[in-house]
Amino acid sequence: MEFTNKYKGYTIVNPLMTGGILPEDIQKNLCNEEWLRVGYSLCFNCLEGRSSLVTKPSVKDHLQKIAEFFGGDVAEHTFGCRAAQFAVMHTVRELAKEGSYSDTIIADPNSHYTTNIAAEMNGLKVTEPPHSGYPEYNYTAESFADKIDEVKKDTGKLPALVVVTHVDPYYGNLAPVKEIGKICEEKEVPYMVNAAYTGGILPINIKELKVDFLTLSAHKSMASLGPLGYLVTTFEHSKKVFQTSKQRPDWSGRAFGKKIPNIFGCSVGGIPLISSMLSFSHVKKRVQSWETELEKTRRFADDMEDLGGIMLLGQNPHNHHLLHFETPGLWEISQKHKRKGFFLSEELEKRKINGVHKGLTKHIKISVYGLDKEEIKRIGDAFREIADKK
Amino acid sequence: MEFTNKYKGYTIVNPLMTGGILPEDIQKNLCNEEWLRVGYSLCFNCLEGRSSLVTKPSVKDHLQKIAEFFGGDVAEHTFGCRAAQFAVMHTVRELAKEGSYSDTIIADPNSHYTTNIAAEMNGLKVTEPPHSGYPEYNYTAESFADKIDEVKKDTGKLPALVVVTHVDPYYGNLAPVKEIGKICEEKEVPYMVNAAYTGGILPINIKELKVDFLTLSAHKSMASLGPLGYLVTTFEHSKKVFQTSKQRPDWSGRAFGKKIPNIFGCSVGGIPLISSMLSFSHVKKRVQSWETELEKTRRFADDMEDLGGIMLLGQNPHNHHLLHFETPGLWEISQKHKRKGFFLSEELEKRKINGVHKGLTKHIKISVYGLDKEEIKRIGDAFREIADKK
Repeated sequence: MEFTNKYKGYTIVNPLMTGGILPEDIQKNLCNEEWLRVGYSLCFNCLEGRSSLVTKPSVKDHLQKIAEFFGGDVAEHTFGCRAAQFAVMHTVRELAKEGSYSDTIIADPNSHYTTNIAAEMNGLKVTEPPHSGYPEYNYTAESFADKIDEVKKDTGKLPALVVVTHVDPYYGNLAPVKEIGKICEEKEVPYMVNAAYTGGILPINIKELKVDFLTLSAHKSMASLGPLGYLVTTFEHSKKVFQTSKQRPDWSGRAFGKKIPNIFGCSVGGIPLISSMLSFSHVKKRVQSWETELEKTRRFADDMEDLGGIMLLGQNPHNHHLLHFETPGLWEISQKHKRKGFFLSEELEKRKINGVHKGLTKHIKISVYGLDKEEIKRIGDAFREIADKK
Repeated sequence: MEFTNKYKGYTIVNPLMTGGILPEDIQKNLCNEEWLRVGYSLCFNCLEGRSSLVTKPSVKDHLQKIAEFFGGDVAEHTFGCRAAQFAVMHTVRELAKEGSYSDTIIADPNSHYTTNIAAEMNGLKVTEPPHSGYPEYNYTAESFADKIDEVKKDTGKLPALVVVTHVDPYYGNLAPVKEIGKICEEKEVPYMVNAAYTGGILPINIKELKVDFLTLSAHKSMASLGPLGYLVTTFEHSKKVFQTSKQRPDWSGRAFGKKIPNIFGCSVGGIPLISSMLSFSHVKKRVQSWETELEKTRRFADDMEDLGGIMLLGQNPHNHHLLHFETPGLWEISQKHKRKGFFLSEELEKRKINGVHKGLTKHIKISVYGLDKEEIKRIGDAFREIADKK
């Protein structure tokens, strides 16, 4: 009936996780205040039948603050960033059906899989501009202008959406979101930025970036439990994407007027939303120190490369805490090691460090986001010891 | 940065919540084992990129046990029962598009709103057989046979799906699911049962009931945090509803082969799934004592009616813990009370009882599921005192 968390007290370096770690006092609050007693503890005072309208505690105010923090007008919480992306794709698919747009969308070639899955769920085709390949994997804003023209030429219509992954999950590259925003505005194509790896980490203002839809992951980058995401948009776009239910069953004629179909009527929220409401002031504050965090990350990347047989992929100098190293030196060790590819994660775990993908040594993804200098040194030392073993 | 839970230590009588309360030792485990430190704590050992394939801790085994417990072959966890319903509707919509079925589905007239929203999301029309109206709101299995014939006659095709809400959220009526299952099998219409209020409360076997798709709510009826649901189905149906991703973006040609589009690729899981894995043995056990629970509920309903000015709606004797009373006596008091409709919830809260809808006194929904005799007596006494005040 009980299982133990092997990684209790470990230092976490998984780039999926470091932006999602909850401050300790919030973990304590969740336990002490009995929020964990029941899944619906956010709904004790639900009067209107949708969690985003609850005022005690004020989910409604919280969502307004989220919208403002990202420079938008309206926000709804969702079942993760993937569900926020789904809501946007579902909306533009309807526009495509009406004939206003093509059913092709443009997404960057480093998109997270959830972008492509959301497109697949909605029957939208995905076309991509190219990236520069090894070792940087960059792409230009101009290539999006070309792609828009190409879709227009091929289908006679503008693409239903341009999607850009603000920082991508493969290389941690920062995309030229502002430049692409300008192009989308000029060419009048709806523009979505997937900020799963950035919203809650670095400052974002959708009005400045000309973004129509911003999708966020609370459990990836907003110090929150999951599954939880947010969709932030402008007042204008909110009318479509957050349109309330219109359909009625024929016999009973029941109406579900407060429910928003694109987010499953009501996105519940539960403990993840409570945790995000608790940690939001912490998140707002930490975003201000992003430059300091980035410096720590860059220094760590340099130190790793100094070990030899290790090279940072993607943009260098780097612009995000997700670091992807090519590590032929570690791979060589694994070839002679009795635990083969598992030796690396096991050596790190011996030192109470968790988060590199188990079994892989040719490449590693790692993040030291939010860690203090001492912890970062401990991680660097661990890699030095492991590399020296050969 | 902190907010307090006003209802800490209260007795909860909200029928949405009583089946979702976590055993105390599980609340403690979540806190003590540091599962709350990070949203992705289930993913420390994710090797295959989908939470349902994780083996440490074994989500894979857990899902197999869930499937078996409900008499099915395959189960996936979802973002709540609403997302499980969405996956089914999305599947049958594709069959409708291919021309195999009509794009009309049949749902019972007491369906939960999430059923209708899932249909709306997928562009499926909903037709309903009638219920008997006040005070029982019952319907017959035969009316579903008639509806199927009607859709066939009107559209030239069979309905894409029959949906029955096992126990409905309005009156707590138990539907004739087995009889309808027989009809659907004979007429060859896919059959979904929404067990949000029953799965985890009373025994269900989808093979015995001839059910193709069973949708479950972990936070409503399986002693779990939310948002979390499950979709249980047969091996045959699993091939379509849990079909992995097929689409590839054109330039990179990336494949997302382990991801299941109908459940957003991967349904994450997080703390809600950990809580459900921890509480599953408790849930399996409690389902065995359903008859005892039902007796307690029926006795409580009788005692409430004995207060006068109170009548149970729906099936009587009742077959579920969700009780909907018509309470003109309480409404009368509210008319003279300075707090108007809010007097009832406030009087109950004074006695540390939470869960009746605030502001309403003409009707109340209440559940004493899982409470011991002493607590149930305390609730009955509270209503007696409140009713006597007039």
